[in-house]
Amino acid sequence: MKFNIFSKKNNKEEKAFGELASHKRRVSELRRDLVGGAWIVLATARGNRPHEISDHSVSKERSPKKNCPFEDPQASGNGEPLLIYGDKSDWSLQVVANKYPAFSTEGECIEGGKCKVGCGHTIKRGLYSVRDGFGYHEILITRDHDRYLPQFTDEQASEVIKAYLERYNFLKKQDCIKYIAIFENHGKKAGASIYHPHAQIMALPFLPSDIRRSLRGSAKYNSRHKRCVHCVMLSWELERGERVIYEEDSFVALCPFVSFGSFEIRIYPKLHQASFDQITKSQITSFARALRVSLGKLDKALNNPPYNYFIHTAPLEKIGGYSHYHWHLEILPTFDMDGGFELGTGVQITTTAPEEAAKILNKQKP
Amino acid sequence: MKFNIFSKKNNKEEKAFGELASHKRRVSELRRDLVGGAWIVLATARGNRPHEISDHSVSKERSPKKNCPFEDPQASGNGEPLLIYGDKSDWSLQVVANKYPAFSTEGECIEGGKCKVGCGHTIKRGLYSVRDGFGYHEILITRDHDRYLPQFTDEQASEVIKAYLERYNFLKKQDCIKYIAIFENHGKKAGASIYHPHAQIMALPFLPSDIRRSLRGSAKYNSRHKRCVHCVMLSWELERGERVIYEEDSFVALCPFVSFGSFEIRIYPKLHQASFDQITKSQITSFARALRVSLGKLDKALNNPPYNYFIHTAPLEKIGGYSHYHWHLEILPTFDMDGGFELGTGVQITTTAPEEAAKILNKQKP
Repeated sequence: MKFNIFSKKNNKEEKAFGELASHKRRVSELRRDLVGGAWIVLATARGNRPHEISDHSVSKERSPKKNCPFEDPQASGNGEPLLIYGDKSDWSLQVVANKYPAFSTEGECIEGGKCKVGCGHTIKRGLYSVRDGFGYHEILITRDHDRYLPQFTDEQASEVIKAYLERYNFLKKQDCIKYIAIFENHGKKAGASIYHPHAQIMALPFLPSDIRRSLRGSAKYNSRHKRCVHCVMLSWELERGERVIYEEDSFVALCPFVSFGSFEIRIYPKLHQASFDQITKSQITSFARALRVSLGKLDKALNNPPYNYFIHTAPLEKIGGYSHYHWHLEILPTFDMDGGFELGTGVQITTTAPEEAAKILNKQKP
Repeated sequence: MKFNIFSKKNNKEEKAFGELASHKRRVSELRRDLVGGAWIVLATARGNRPHEISDHSVSKERSPKKNCPFEDPQASGNGEPLLIYGDKSDWSLQVVANKYPAFSTEGECIEGGKCKVGCGHTIKRGLYSVRDGFGYHEILITRDHDRYLPQFTDEQASEVIKAYLERYNFLKKQDCIKYIAIFENHGKKAGASIYHPHAQIMALPFLPSDIRRSLRGSAKYNSRHKRCVHCVMLSWELERGERVIYEEDSFVALCPFVSFGSFEIRIYPKLHQASFDQITKSQITSFARALRVSLGKLDKALNNPPYNYFIHTAPLEKIGGYSHYHWHLEILPTFDMDGGFELGTGVQITTTAPEEAAKILNKQKP
């Protein structure tokens, strides 16, 4: 699973296409995802230009510090920190249990006192299968009310990644946990109910459908080509360069050829690693910088837009069995809601070509 | 694939659960989709109550008639009607080609004059597979600027379904078309850029990922149980009754046990039919009424909320091979955007139980 150089034949094919770019083209182009096999529709004539979406700036949503529940989490009724950097009177980052969790370890099992369902077993309810909403749901809060990753130093950004890893390493040892989801919602439109910067960590008792699909695609490619599909893609993209927005020794950030939304960015470790917790100490700073710089470019290019980012990693079970996977982080700026086409077919219509998005992002100096 | 009565054993199981409902419960319950196998999270403590979402009423978005491009589609630069009921000076419904299509039959093939790609072939561009955005994208416009299905008579509603069918039957005969997507976006939040009621019809040169997945699940159930999974589900739901919101001779509307969003509604033909174009003349009125009544209940319960509806049907190829499928229509009211959890895992968090939604919808007299 190391990088290789692609044949000249392939390069020629792509060049030929470039030369024909002035021809009258179809209104859209379909691109197939290398991992999952899904098609996306690239329809650049339908989208707004970047400056037209900048009215969604998260800066306009600023709420005053004095009512903010994350300025002093414990005074606002959050529990004791599960992790804290500094102490409660002078902290830079803390993790607390979510006051409004989607998963919890509390409460009785779903069928009341009459059964011993445990934390992770599926039971039948008539025709259907149900299961307890057992799991962990935590909030990671950084100290400053306004500044977040794009404004952080490398050291501050590294603290965030270090905290992700510490909680990941704790949660992976808990009973019944199959997958750990780490993500951030930035701005109301992206689902953040509180302005103060915070990320979320959820430990789930089942393997989420999108992860299962992604693993299946990665396994299929691996068994056919004896190589990691993400490594192959990275090698190709680094050679071409046109969609790469950041590169250093151990991490790459790029706008994927098959983007599921405009200005999508993905950050990959160059070294093949299946799972996020395989990240090394020296890689933490490098990953933090890649994330900080990528978000900074997005912030500048689209005027602090709402976005989500999340880590995709191999699940906890059978770690050996998932060695073909390659963990990464995805950033998706928030544009319009999905319409009936997207909801009814699962097909995304992307209106900014990743080549164009990369060009715009590469002009920004974060 | 006919209905049957479930064993008493199953009924007892479900009753036992009902009796235990007062116990302290987990914060959420996971429910597994019968067809696709995906889990959803039902977390009722996290949601807003219905009256809290009514500020998104589409009625507030009304734009004046005089600037509306759909009052006189041809005068606004749309092409000649592809289908019209009445004539151009006095019409009740017309279908036109979308002025801003996501798919089109015009333009050269994707690699310019140097290749003969045709309308539906996948070609390699370096590492990736791409394909022409060949296809059809049509708009169905009904005459009245404000009134739509919930306010229509049965006759007017039947015209809409009849028009869907006429276009479906035309498009299915065109070259390279694999799937026809019929949907409506109601309200800005649901993706409608124009206030005047309109639906969309898209004919695609590939099988969308969600449809492929749904077909795979349906085929798997069929090969294991020798029955249609949707027929089995309908039989169960009709017997229980608590999630059914409308029933007559040939159609049923219900809130699915595994709802991918709050107040999701599905409408099924009772008779097993794989594909939408198998609908009979007498069924058209019945389907139209089921849709009209379901949307009417939603309109009343949530104060004209934004929503999407779409038809899921067997694809055009190998129709015999998809005889296990069962076409239906899904209605999804629009609430908040997906956050990083949903985007990163594909898992939906639904905050209103379908049993509760059905209770509320059943109180409405549309």
